[in-house]
Amino acid sequence: MRLDRHSSIPLYAQLRELIVERIQDEVYKQGERIPSEMTFCEELGLSRPTVRQAIAELVSDGILEIQKGRGTFVAVEPDRLSIPHFNALTFSFLNLSSYEDIGLQPVQHVDPEAEIDTAFKVTTDKHPGYWMLQWPVLFDERIYGWCTSYVSAQVFPDLGQNIASGKRMIDIKSNKYAYLPVKGSVALMARPARNREAALLEIPRRSIVLAAQGQLFGRNGAVCEYIRTALRPDLLKLEIN
Amino acid sequence: MRLDRHSSIPLYAQLRELIVERIQDEVYKQGERIPSEMTFCEELGLSRPTVRQAIAELVSDGILEIQKGRGTFVAVEPDRLSIPHFNALTFSFLNLSSYEDIGLQPVQHVDPEAEIDTAFKVTTDKHPGYWMLQWPVLFDERIYGWCTSYVSAQVFPDLGQNIASGKRMIDIKSNKYAYLPVKGSVALMARPARNREAALLEIPRRSIVLAAQGQLFGRNGAVCEYIRTALRPDLLKLEIN
Repeated sequence: MRLDRHSSIPLYAQLRELIVERIQDEVYKQGERIPSEMTFCEELGLSRPTVRQAIAELVSDGILEIQKGRGTFVAVEPDRLSIPHFNALTFSFLNLSSYEDIGLQPVQHVDPEAEIDTAFKVTTDKHPGYWMLQWPVLFDERIYGWCTSYVSAQVFPDLGQNIASGKRMIDIKSNKYAYLPVKGSVALMARPARNREAALLEIPRRSIVLAAQGQLFGRNGAVCEYIRTALRPDLLKLEIN
Repeated sequence: MRLDRHSSIPLYAQLRELIVERIQDEVYKQGERIPSEMTFCEELGLSRPTVRQAIAELVSDGILEIQKGRGTFVAVEPDRLSIPHFNALTFSFLNLSSYEDIGLQPVQHVDPEAEIDTAFKVTTDKHPGYWMLQWPVLFDERIYGWCTSYVSAQVFPDLGQNIASGKRMIDIKSNKYAYLPVKGSVALMARPARNREAALLEIPRRSIVLAAQGQLFGRNGAVCEYIRTALRPDLLKLEIN
């Protein structure tokens, strides 16, 4: 990329893009100092205010950062939390061996509802509905995502009461082996956050989240769980093997 | 959500959020008509200009759409292209059985480079470098993503020439079975597009892409390919099984 003095794009904006490109190409590396304003002026034949404005905008974007008395540095992107061996069962409730450590929210009962009935391939609305389970993806007290899971109240009629009374997962699952997830079909996409997701994740409304959503199947082939997870795309990555 | 007349947020902005929430809750469903301006005025005790401004903004955001003479409708989100059975090998070059249909760009040779050497776990820069392969993820002539793959020029010394001369994949691969990918470790994340990715995908600079990036391993356990794929998050979803 070269600066174009005849372009309708102001020179400071061209310089800003040039610096971004050099960071992306690792000419200027994360955590390292970029050249001084004077160096840019001389290299590119620019005036001091032009260089200053480009750098000021990159600082306010968080791409560069000023360290007092030391100069201007390429900001270090925070390490992302890695979710290892990500697969369709990663955010399953029924696949957990225990629910004590996940920060489970109070379990709610939901009546039959079109979207969930469709996910469970249920064609009647004459059934006892679902249990809705919600818990955060937490690490070091920081919220990386929220998991929502629906479980059939027909198959697990007492799940809400069982959890409220502290029944252990192993007892909740006993005699239910045909209804525990062994595989799934989860769609992963980036999409604007729903308002409630944005509130839970503490991000601006309609900012992009990484969403994992789909059905989990038991050994008998029936849908046993429907999950809908919203993840902070800026804070984590999913390791696919 | 209720409207709050004492809030510092203007009523039209509150109404806009209320409508968005009702769409997300499927009170107003995709492709269906929303109530008339008068109905909102009466239900919520709002003036006509307030309702009109909220709706106008949602139309300009693409959340609602006006169908002339018919009313205002909830816009239908386009179906996303689904990439089935997504796994670490989905965007591998060496895993392809043929490269004829993928729209492969001219193959470039790249000299040893820190980022790629690290990915290949190569600790010396005394080696013949890499072949860089690039091709679009195309469907119905629409670009959904760009794949970049690096292959060792030490293991495949003639890959560039072989492809330029139209050698078949089966012949390129013969006698190389130990160096063909059988598993991988790919990190999937949403992040701002690099400038070049944004240009290839024809999206605004620094908009969010879904990136799949990582190493693929051959039967001998060594890294045989390094991939870096940028996908349009608004146009596709990855099916994880």
